Amino acid sequence: LQFSVVSIGMDNTSSVRGQSVGDVGEFELIDRLAGLVSGSAAVVGIGDDAAVLDVGDGDYVLATVDMMVQGAHFELGDTDPEVIGRRAIAMNVSDIAAMGGEPTFALISLALPPECPVDFVERIYHGLVYQAGVTGAGIAGGNVTRTSGPICIDVTMLGRVPRDEVVLRSGARPGDILVVTGTLGAAAARRVARRDGRKDDPSLVALVDALPSGPIARVHVARRLAAGHIPRAMLDLSDGLAGDIRHLCSASSVGAAIYQDRLPISAETRAICASLDVSPVPLALSGGEDYELLIALSAENLAGARQAAGGVPLTVIGEIVSTAGEVTLVAESGDRQELSLDGWTHF
Amino acid sequence: LQFSVVSIGMDNTSSVRGQSVGDVGEFELIDRLAGLVSGSAAVVGIGDDAAVLDVGDGDYVLATVDMMVQGAHFELGDTDPEVIGRRAIAMNVSDIAAMGGEPTFALISLALPPECPVDFVERIYHGLVYQAGVTGAGIAGGNVTRTSGPICIDVTMLGRVPRDEVVLRSGARPGDILVVTGTLGAAAARRVARRDGRKDDPSLVALVDALPSGPIARVHVARRLAAGHIPRAMLDLSDGLAGDIRHLCSASSVGAAIYQDRLPISAETRAICASLDVSPVPLALSGGEDYELLIALSAENLAGARQAAGGVPLTVIGEIVSTAGEVTLVAESGDRQELSLDGWTHF
Repeated sequence: LQFSVVSIGMDNTSSVRGQSVGDVGEFELIDRLAGLVSGSAAVVGIGDDAAVLDVGDGDYVLATVDMMVQGAHFELGDTDPEVIGRRAIAMNVSDIAAMGGEPTFALISLALPPECPVDFVERIYHGLVYQAGVTGAGIAGGNVTRTSGPICIDVTMLGRVPRDEVVLRSGARPGDILVVTGTLGAAAARRVARRDGRKDDPSLVALVDALPSGPIARVHVARRLAAGHIPRAMLDLSDGLAGDIRHLCSASSVGAAIYQDRLPISAETRAICASLDVSPVPLALSGGEDYELLIALSAENLAGARQAAGGVPLTVIGEIVSTAGEVTLVAESGDRQELSLDGWTHF
Repeated sequence: LQFSVVSIGMDNTSSVRGQSVGDVGEFELIDRLAGLVSGSAAVVGIGDDAAVLDVGDGDYVLATVDMMVQGAHFELGDTDPEVIGRRAIAMNVSDIAAMGGEPTFALISLALPPECPVDFVERIYHGLVYQAGVTGAGIAGGNVTRTSGPICIDVTMLGRVPRDEVVLRSGARPGDILVVTGTLGAAAARRVARRDGRKDDPSLVALVDALPSGPIARVHVARRLAAGHIPRAMLDLSDGLAGDIRHLCSASSVGAAIYQDRLPISAETRAICASLDVSPVPLALSGGEDYELLIALSAENLAGARQAAGGVPLTVIGEIVSTAGEVTLVAESGDRQELSLDGWTHF
């Protein structure tokens, strides 16, 4: 390694040094950075929903981090600051749940511009504290840093899981059924309605207001499923089913078939889409921010899974197949096509 | 709590809603946010160098987070990206050390603008991986997020400490001596030389190059001192002695006297200051980024502390007094004055 001081700025290096972050995209960049990290002592390191850490004789410690950035994940005028805070916790709790764990402690790191109102920050914190409390996690510490740029809210969430109950992305086998909790597409429908909807249409506003105001991390379902050793593989749906299922397939070296007519889409989401004259299917496939669980399990465990899930609906949306990396969308007619990342179908 | 959607932006709220983040400053903001967090199950929560978490029967888990922001903590052209990465790890390891612990795992969260060269990010990561390796920590995971603003590098560091060896800021007692590891002011001297120095003066450049290129977190010293139950209170010097000592005094409800002529300032730092015609004292008192340990201990344990410290110099710089909140700077002449936060003296 060289640690000599260089005197070159960012702008004049990007041309001579080649690719930018925007060129390679999030996932290739993470792969390249993960390649620089060797020999971590973590039981499971980069590449699953959370890291699995062995810190003693008891449960494994789980650890995950995710950042929300103003302009990318929220807009000042569009989003209630409490909802921003709730979402920042929920998205991380969801990663802990996807490992079969329960959240324990959160650390909150904020980058704030000096002109940001204290009131705004306090309301974000109200949301953080509220959502942490709902999910059983404590806020153990944090940090505040000055920035000249957008507000950044970085949440590190720790959790715990009994050693024999940790669920990875890598255990799915051909023949397993694919199940999702809850419904898909609601967050995307809300976003599209805000962006494209008629702001003065009271019926559309009423439909959007009827959507749940924040994501629900599926901790209790995940814990009960994991304790019953039911999931072979599990992850949480953050970017959208069409993209996230590839992570599960890649980690498990399998493929998947998804049945379009089985996608669980709520009546409220369908009504918003009807009002906007858009199809709910792409929103359910790739709208993102669902924070539901995608679970691969043996078909014979479905009844047990439903029992463990209590009142939370579990919907069978497809199955695992042996052709590694191939994700197929099956239409009601039986027609099949490769599932595109953006969820748009050509049926 | 209200979670209704509001439609107000940042700029038009700051006037009606009152104070901005810049108005109240970092420490008042943290106090106000900490006041919103109630009933955390952490053994020690917000307010020490790291949170102390009880996760089972074994050692306590320590957790801390700190962010580096482009423009505030580094400039693209001024700082070698490997050094940025090394510093991001070292500043967090230093917080773990200040609790008497050793670092175990780091999570790295990056906010990156799309135009940022991949090469630049990879070099930051080289620094992160290098410094983590030096301090015995593994990089267990991380996250990459898009931003329209400056690069943010948020490092969460976990550590561990035996339950009876954790060192807080709150145990200092009147009569304790105050000791620092290593020397103070080198990072500030480098910064001033870069900013104000004659760029074409080879002797100044040579002096700056002779400074250590990155901070050294004092993990081994801290561990040995803690294992010997020597420190009554300890913290790491990140913002500068003049400010940081107030945190120790506040947590311990004591005051302190610092002897100006005992401040450990290296020959290299003194030479740079002589070349720039500035006093090294304010740099040592409030330049910041020293990442040395400030330790309050009983005078009778000084010999034991020196033995535990091995080759790392320990310098007695002052003592704890009973007048809570009063931090005095004592000149060689014996004159005393309140130690100002910016470290400038009026002797």
